[in-house]
Amino acid sequence: MPRVSDARAAELFGQSRRWGRWGDDDQRGALNLLTPDRVARAAALVATGEVVSCGRELPVAPAADNPNPALHHMVAAGDIAVRGQGLQASADFFGVAFHGMAVSHIDALCHVFVDGLMWNGIPAAEVTSAGARRNSIAAAFGGIVGRGVLLDIPRVRGVEWLEPAEAIVPDELDAACGAQHVEVEPGDILLVATGRDARRAAYGPWDPNDPGLAGLHAECVPWLVDHDPAVLGSDGVSDVLPADDHAWPIPIHQCLLVGMGVHLLDNLRLDPLAAVCAAHNRWEFLFTVAPLQLARGTGSPVNPIAVF
Amino acid sequence: MPRVSDARAAELFGQSRRWGRWGDDDQRGALNLLTPDRVARAAALVATGEVVSCGRELPVAPAADNPNPALHHMVAAGDIAVRGQGLQASADFFGVAFHGMAVSHIDALCHVFVDGLMWNGIPAAEVTSAGARRNSIAAAFGGIVGRGVLLDIPRVRGVEWLEPAEAIVPDELDAACGAQHVEVEPGDILLVATGRDARRAAYGPWDPNDPGLAGLHAECVPWLVDHDPAVLGSDGVSDVLPADDHAWPIPIHQCLLVGMGVHLLDNLRLDPLAAVCAAHNRWEFLFTVAPLQLARGTGSPVNPIAVF
Amino acid sequence: MPRVSDARAAELFGQSRRWGRWGDDDQRGALNLLTPDRVARAAALVATGEVVSCGRELPVAPAADNPNPALHHMVAAGDIAVRGQGLQASADFFGVAFHGMAVSHIDALCHVFVDGLMWNGIPAAEVTSAGARRNSIAAAFGGIVGRGVLLDIPRVRGVEWLEPAEAIVPDELDAACGAQHVEVEPGDILLVATGRDARRAAYGPWDPNDPGLAGLHAECVPWLVDHDPAVLGSDGVSDVLPADDHAWPIPIHQCLLVGMGVHLLDNLRLDPLAAVCAAHNRWEFLFTVAPLQLARGTGSPVNPIAVF
Amino acid sequence: MPRVSDARAAELFGQSRRWGRWGDDDQRGALNLLTPDRVARAAALVATGEVVSCGRELPVAPAADNPNPALHHMVAAGDIAVRGQGLQASADFFGVAFHGMAVSHIDALCHVFVDGLMWNGIPAAEVTSAGARRNSIAAAFGGIVGRGVLLDIPRVRGVEWLEPAEAIVPDELDAACGAQHVEVEPGDILLVATGRDARRAAYGPWDPNDPGLAGLHAECVPWLVDHDPAVLGSDGVSDVLPADDHAWPIPIHQCLLVGMGVHLLDNLRLDPLAAVCAAHNRWEFLFTVAPLQLARGTGSPVNPIAVF
Repeated sequence: MPRVSDARAAELFGQSRRWGRWGDDDQRGALNLLTPDRVARAAALVATGEVVSCGRELPVAPAADNPNPALHHMVAAGDIAVRGQGLQASADFFGVAFHGMAVSHIDALCHVFVDGLMWNGIPAAEVTSAGARRNSIAAAFGGIVGRGVLLDIPRVRGVEWLEPAEAIVPDELDAACGAQHVEVEPGDILLVATGRDARRAAYGPWDPNDPGLAGLHAECVPWLVDHDPAVLGSDGVSDVLPADDHAWPIPIHQCLLVGMGVHLLDNLRLDPLAAVCAAHNRWEFLFTVAPLQLARGTGSPVNPIAVF
Repeated sequence: MPRVSDARAAELFGQSRRWGRWGDDDQRGALNLLTPDRVARAAALVATGEVVSCGRELPVAPAADNPNPALHHMVAAGDIAVRGQGLQASADFFGVAFHGMAVSHIDALCHVFVDGLMWNGIPAAEVTSAGARRNSIAAAFGGIVGRGVLLDIPRVRGVEWLEPAEAIVPDELDAACGAQHVEVEPGDILLVATGRDARRAAYGPWDPNDPGLAGLHAECVPWLVDHDPAVLGSDGVSDVLPADDHAWPIPIHQCLLVGMGVHLLDNLRLDPLAAVCAAHNRWEFLFTVAPLQLARGTGSPVNPIAVF
Repeated sequence: MPRVSDARAAELFGQSRRWGRWGDDDQRGALNLLTPDRVARAAALVATGEVVSCGRELPVAPAADNPNPALHHMVAAGDIAVRGQGLQASADFFGVAFHGMAVSHIDALCHVFVDGLMWNGIPAAEVTSAGARRNSIAAAFGGIVGRGVLLDIPRVRGVEWLEPAEAIVPDELDAACGAQHVEVEPGDILLVATGRDARRAAYGPWDPNDPGLAGLHAECVPWLVDHDPAVLGSDGVSDVLPADDHAWPIPIHQCLLVGMGVHLLDNLRLDPLAAVCAAHNRWEFLFTVAPLQLARGTGSPVNPIAVF
Repeated sequence: MPRVSDARAAELFGQSRRWGRWGDDDQRGALNLLTPDRVARAAALVATGEVVSCGRELPVAPAADNPNPALHHMVAAGDIAVRGQGLQASADFFGVAFHGMAVSHIDALCHVFVDGLMWNGIPAAEVTSAGARRNSIAAAFGGIVGRGVLLDIPRVRGVEWLEPAEAIVPDELDAACGAQHVEVEPGDILLVATGRDARRAAYGPWDPNDPGLAGLHAECVPWLVDHDPAVLGSDGVSDVLPADDHAWPIPIHQCLLVGMGVHLLDNLRLDPLAAVCAAHNRWEFLFTVAPLQLARGTGSPVNPIAVF
C-alpha cells in the first residue's frame, strides 16, 4: 500500500480531529479515558506478579539510530569518596534531548503541530523557547496507569521482524487481535511491536530515516479513531518511516497527538514483553508510565512497566 | 534523643550489614525481596483505581533547597514549527544532577560508601569518573513494583508537619503502625512522611542543611533491619538533617544503602498520598518506581506512582 | 540624576540609531571600525610586554550574583587514567548560559531587541529556538583586536569603588579622560571600571538586580555616539542597575547593541588592568577579544587580554 | 619511518623530561618562557594590522571527526522577546566536551599522564572527578601572548595536504624553516600545518582514528626539546594518528605535556593563516590564546588570534 497523498492525509486528519471532546480547555486529551474504574480493572488482570520493563537503556554513545546520545557525567566518583573526609558518596549528572530515535520516551501533546495548531486547537505559539505553556507533559504528571494491550505484528506474520519501511495496515491490526484473542477497547494503552529489537540484535543499529522503521500506515487512523486508545506506543515511532517530504510526513503522530489528543510512546523495548505475553498467551496486562515532572516539557524519557 | 556517636553508628552499621545474603555477586540487594508473589499480592490491593503521583516537579529555578536546578532547554519551539517547511514540531533537552535536596529520586546502591566499600563489600573504586561499573541503578532497570506502606508521622503526632531537624525514633514508627492499623512486612516499600510539603507550602523552601530536615534517627536502624523493607522512601531524605560533622553523617543512608542493600527514595511528594490514605483509612497500596535506564548511573530522578 | 523617562530613552535611541552606516546587509556593526590601520597602531602601543587578563573565573558554584553557575564535569579523571590500559588522560565537559551577571562575556548584536528589531533593522524573528540566523556572534569570529582605553571612574572620584546603583554621567567620562590624559577615539575598545571587583572582595557577592550595579546613565548615549567606540565594556554590565520597569530597562544595551551596532563586554575583571595602567600612568593598550565560534550564538564567554 | 617502539618512546620521554626546570612547585611549564621581553618583541612584529583567527567553528552536529558535538540551546529566542513585556532579549547555553577531534582547544598540563604522573611529577590522583587541583588550565588564565611561527609542511612538500597517518620527521621541520626563512626560537608558539582543512574541504570530514591524521613522528621530540617552544599547535593533534596500541600511543602529547610542560593547541584552523603568511612571505606574527577561566579544567576551547 503506497503512502497517502497530502489530500488523503488531510482527510484522515479531519476524521481524527475531536477537539472539544473533553471541553475547550482540556489539555489531557485521551488520558481522560483512564478512569479509576478502568485502572481498577487493569490491576485486576495481575495474576503471576511478573514485572516487565518496556524501556531501552539510555544511549550514551553515538550510534546510527542515535546521533545525539545522552550525556552522563559523574560529579563525584569513588576517587573523591575514598579520599575525602566525612561522607563518602558518588553522584552524577545526565542530560538528554529525548525525542530521538533511540530513547524510550513519551510525546506530550505539544510535540507536534498541524497548521500551527496542537491538540484542542491551541496555537503553536504557546510553545516558546521558554517551554510549553499549554499541552505540556504536565498533563501526565499524575501517572499513566491502565490496561496495556500488545499487538505483536511479526508473530502474526510469522516472521522475526518487520523490515525497515514496512507498513502495517488496518487489516493486520484486526488480524493480530484475532490471532491473539484480544480486543482493543476504549481507554487501552495500545502497544504495537514490529520486532525492531530483534532486528537490531541481529544486524546492529541502523538509521531510522534511511532505510527507515516499520510502523503503522496512515490508513490505520480510522481504525485508531474507532478503537479509541488512551495511549499508543511502539518499538519504533508508531509511524512507518522514512517520512515523505510533504506536509504530512508522520501522519500517525500528526493525527494522534494533534487530532485525537493521544500521547505516544516511542522506541519502547517490546521483545521481553512479547515473550512473556506469548508464554502466557495473554496479551493484556497492567501498564504504568511515569513521566518525569518537567513542567513545561514536550515529553519525557520513560521506563514503562508491565505487570502480569 | 541526641544524635548517635561515631562508636554507636559503627555498631549500628555492623548490625545492619548483611553482605552475602543474596550471594557474593549480588548487586540488587533488598530488591530481591520483590518476588512475583509479593507483587501479585500488592496488585490485589487495588480497589478504587485512584492513581497518585509521589514525585515533585523537577525544579528548574534556583531555590534555598535547590541551588543547582535542572536545565530545561527547548531545542525546537513553536517559532520553528510554524515557520518551517515539512514537519511542525517542538522538542527539548533537560539535564539534572538529581542527587539534590529538591528532586524526587532513587539512590542506587553505589551512591554511598562506608570505609571505601559499598553494598556487598564492593570497593568504591568500581565507581570511576566513567560511572559505576557495579551497584549502579541498572539493578532496578526492570522496575520496582510492590506493596507500598505509608507511615504518616505528623498525623500520629497530631501536628501539620515535623520541624526541620526533628528526629523520628523507633517507638514512633511502631506507634504509627498501630494508629494506622498497618504492619510493615518484609519486602514492603516503606514511605515515611514528615509533612515537608505542607511546611514548604506555608513558609517557602528552606535549606535542608540548615536548619535541616526531619527524618529518622539512627536508632531506627535496628527497627528497619527487623522489618526488612525492599525500599525506603521519604519526603525528606530519610535521614534527619543537619548531618553531624563526623564519620557517620547520614547513618540511615550509610546503613541502608551499604549495609542492607536497600535503595532509597528521596524528596518524594507525600501529601497527596497521605490525603488519599487518610480518606480511605488505608495505608497500603500498589506502588511502582521506574528508574531511567542509565547503565552506569548512581540513581535516577523518578515519579513513583501509587494505585489504590 | 534620575533615570530617564521612556520618552527620553526613545529619543536617545533615535539619536543612536545609525542603521545602514555600513550597508543594509551589515551584521558586524562597529567592528567595522577595527581597520588594519587601527590594529597596527594599537600593536605599536606595546612597550613592556606585560600581559593582563580581563576575564573573571567562570563561576561553578551558585552565588548571589550568579544563580545559574556553569557546569563543570569531568568525563575522565585520574582514576581512569591510572587504572586503564593504553593512554592515561583526563578530560572534562563544561556548559554555561553565559549571559549572567558573573560571567565575563561578549554580547552579540542579536542579544537585545527594540520594538522587535535588532541592529540594522533585522527582525527578532531571525533569532529562533534554533539560534540566531543573523547578527550572531559569528560577526566576531575573526577576533577583535584594537586599542583598548580604560576609564577608571573610582579613581577619578577618589573612591575605592562606586556603590551599587550609582550612575556615571557624561561629564565624568570627560573628567576621566582629562585626569588620565587619554582621548577616546573612534574605533577604540572602551572599558569603564566601576570598582566592582574591589567591592566584591570587601563585601562578597551581591545581587546585581538589587541593590544593583554601578554603570553608565542613559544620558551617556550621545557621548558614546560622539566618541564612536568599536566595542564597549565594563566590570558591570555598562548599564546602571537596577533596571526600571519600563520599556527601556537597560538603555545602554538597547542603544549600543541595537542602535549603534556596538558589541558589549560584560562582567570583566578590571582591577588588575587598572593597577597596571596606574603603575605606568598609561590608559591605552593593545586589547584582544577572541569569542568562541558558536555559529548561531548570541555571544560568548571570553577572556579578554590586554598587552602593555 | 615506522612508529617508535615502546622502548624508544620511553627513551624519548626521558630526554624530554625536565621536571624542576622552573622549580618543584611550578605548574606553568613552558609558559614561563613567555617573558615580557619576548611578548614585546612579538608585538613589534605587527606591521599591516591584519587579524587572522585560527579557530574552527564549534561543531554542533555530529560528524565523522566529531561524534560528540557541542550542545547549543537557546534559553530565550526572539519568540519571547517580541511577546514579552519589558526587555526584549535573546540568550543561549552551550556545553562542550572540548577534547574532541574537531574542536579547537588547548590542552592543560593535566590532560595526559605517564606512569600515573603529569608535568613536574605531580600525581594523576590530583585530578579527581571534582576536577584538577593542580596542573589545571588555570596556569594559562593570564593569557598566552607571544611570537607565533607557522611551519607549513604541505607547502614544503609541494602538495595540497598531507594524507591521514602521514608522519612528519625532524628533517622536514628543518627543511620548512629553511624554505620559509624562519628560525624556531625558545619561547615561540610553534604551529605545524598539515593541510587538514584543505583535505576536509575537498573530501569532507573523516575519522581521525581511522584512517588517521597527519602529524609529528615521535622522533621529532629531540628537535622540540632543542627548539624549546612555549606552546605547540597543529591543525591536527600534533601527534600522527592512528595511535599504536601500546603504552605510548601519542608520544608527542606524552612528551610535550608531561615531560616538557608544553601546552598543546589541537584542531586549529591554519589555512587562512598559511595564506596570509604566504602572501607576505612572513611566517612569524603576534599570537594570542585566551583560555576560558575554568579553575579546575583540563583545557579550554579557544579561538587563537594572529596579528600581522
